[in-house]
Amino acid sequence: PAGAPAVQTGLPEIKWRLTSSFPKSLDTIYGGADVLANRLRAITGGKFDIRVFPAGEIVPGLQALDAVQQGTVELCHTCSYYYVGKDKTFGFGTAVPFGLNARQMNAWVMFGGGQQLLDEFYSNYNVVSFLGGNTGVQMGGWFRKPIHSLADVQGLKIRIAGLGGEVFSRLGAIPQQIAGGDIYPSLEKGTIDAAEWVGPYDDEKLGFYKVAPHYYYPGWWEPGPAIHFFVNQTAWASLPKEYQDAFRAAADEANVTMMASYDDKNPQALARLLQNGVKLETYSDEIMQGAYKAAFELYNDEAGKNPAWKKIFTEWDKYRRSQNAWFSVAEATIDRFLQSTR
Amino acid sequence: PAGAPAVQTGLPEIKWRLTSSFPKSLDTIYGGADVLANRLRAITGGKFDIRVFPAGEIVPGLQALDAVQQGTVELCHTCSYYYVGKDKTFGFGTAVPFGLNARQMNAWVMFGGGQQLLDEFYSNYNVVSFLGGNTGVQMGGWFRKPIHSLADVQGLKIRIAGLGGEVFSRLGAIPQQIAGGDIYPSLEKGTIDAAEWVGPYDDEKLGFYKVAPHYYYPGWWEPGPAIHFFVNQTAWASLPKEYQDAFRAAADEANVTMMASYDDKNPQALARLLQNGVKLETYSDEIMQGAYKAAFELYNDEAGKNPAWKKIFTEWDKYRRSQNAWFSVAEATIDRFLQSTR
Repeated sequence: PAGAPAVQTGLPEIKWRLTSSFPKSLDTIYGGADVLANRLRAITGGKFDIRVFPAGEIVPGLQALDAVQQGTVELCHTCSYYYVGKDKTFGFGTAVPFGLNARQMNAWVMFGGGQQLLDEFYSNYNVVSFLGGNTGVQMGGWFRKPIHSLADVQGLKIRIAGLGGEVFSRLGAIPQQIAGGDIYPSLEKGTIDAAEWVGPYDDEKLGFYKVAPHYYYPGWWEPGPAIHFFVNQTAWASLPKEYQDAFRAAADEANVTMMASYDDKNPQALARLLQNGVKLETYSDEIMQGAYKAAFELYNDEAGKNPAWKKIFTEWDKYRRSQNAWFSVAEATIDRFLQSTR
Repeated sequence: PAGAPAVQTGLPEIKWRLTSSFPKSLDTIYGGADVLANRLRAITGGKFDIRVFPAGEIVPGLQALDAVQQGTVELCHTCSYYYVGKDKTFGFGTAVPFGLNARQMNAWVMFGGGQQLLDEFYSNYNVVSFLGGNTGVQMGGWFRKPIHSLADVQGLKIRIAGLGGEVFSRLGAIPQQIAGGDIYPSLEKGTIDAAEWVGPYDDEKLGFYKVAPHYYYPGWWEPGPAIHFFVNQTAWASLPKEYQDAFRAAADEANVTMMASYDDKNPQALARLLQNGVKLETYSDEIMQGAYKAAFELYNDEAGKNPAWKKIFTEWDKYRRSQNAWFSVAEATIDRFLQSTR
């Protein structure tokens, strides 16, 4: 007789749904999920098929984590710090004011113990996490009128959420939570004085410069915000090892390519904005120092009452200091020189 | 009758050999090839099996490209700028003096047209290229005695290769080509005055600080040196599409994780070196300005006689200026502030 039929050893067909916290119009940050999904389909000959849904199609953007936790979808692409309302500790996964820059985030999460600390915390939400992008330091927002001092921050109505908003609040500002589409009319009418969004490439599309031409930098509340893929723990455990490995590599690809894409696009967008009359302004040292002091008071207050925060903050703060000491040597010096020669 | 036997649709078993330009002792940079190989084996259930050989086992480290070009091995992990002796244009793939930092290299290669420009050039050598790591800006070398001025550079015997060596030569120094293992005794005896290697983590192992305690920064000849995988064109074309996709993702993983690993390890190594009496010194503005001027004279001279160089240099130089304009805004400002607060 002929030999036994060849055993079909192929890997399973798996269909997952990913809910993004971002609209398609933010093509670079939204695109990180497409990078992951497209690469996984290509690697597996179409068998591991992740369908990406923009914010709002399955659940609203700020409920992406909840949808994964509950198993409504297998995974999401989101910012950990959107969930600081549940627990401020979520801030560390993306950015906290005066925290790590983009390279330092990668170093901390990948090699400095960050991944273990974060996943221990995230396990309370039934998810595992993967770095899946970075925007680099964001800009410091659009202002109708310039601000120079801490006195100018008093009563300032600024559209900003999360820990950055809490720091502004400690400085006497009145942080506002407004959805992306409502920012422009609010700035135009003067219902708010200022609004933060992302950086030149994303900000340009919304046209804020027409109604609030003072464009401040840096966005000190997010020096290197990381975007994450959160995967439901049960779904993750159900994947064949090969698919898990492909996922890890594709997530790293999404991470490095999103940062590179923003770095490619932002210079051109900023140049166009400047041609359109945008006034580039830097936060004064008085405001930076005041915000830094308020931020670390907030961190120490939280450490006094939130063990999860305290555990991560203690390690993170040591790491941050060591990283800044190192980056102040060769990296800062060559960058400063190169920037002086253009 | 029973149905036809199941068709065996599995992907082929492929065994490749990778020659690294690095010894195993440089674990971080050498490890980039292991990251690629291990991930590809895991993704493919062991079918795509790349065996990694340290420098010297198949061919010497500086002949890695030749081995791939000739098909002795399918791929290598190397620095493009090791081959500037064939054509100075190889410099752009890794680093040229006063060029792009690590993030800017990724932006240029991945999104700024760099990949196409480089691969057009590399096609003359029968290879295709993939980013596969970065060290960040390197340190500026170990000196027996401090140097302050361009006059101090006259007659300086410094171990440095490539375009950095050519710039030193234009400043009146006498660049030396010495293998890694011979640097320490040469510094100790005073046969040479100075030597550049990598950064704190790699340099510490060779103990240069015991015989040349003045540790200069920054390594202006390589602001963000990229490591590459070069794959033989025929070998690449023979891969199933699925393996090509897995390779792309795994190379990006090697790229981002090498940078993160160096960023994690260098601060700790520098702290140990300082405890051992190393004297940290910065290149004077006179030397930096002189080297910058000499470098761009070299670039313009080369553009006058080498069309391949001119084609890439013209595009690269525009990109460099735009990147430095952008990085001088938010990134430089937040980094400077963070470094001031530690």
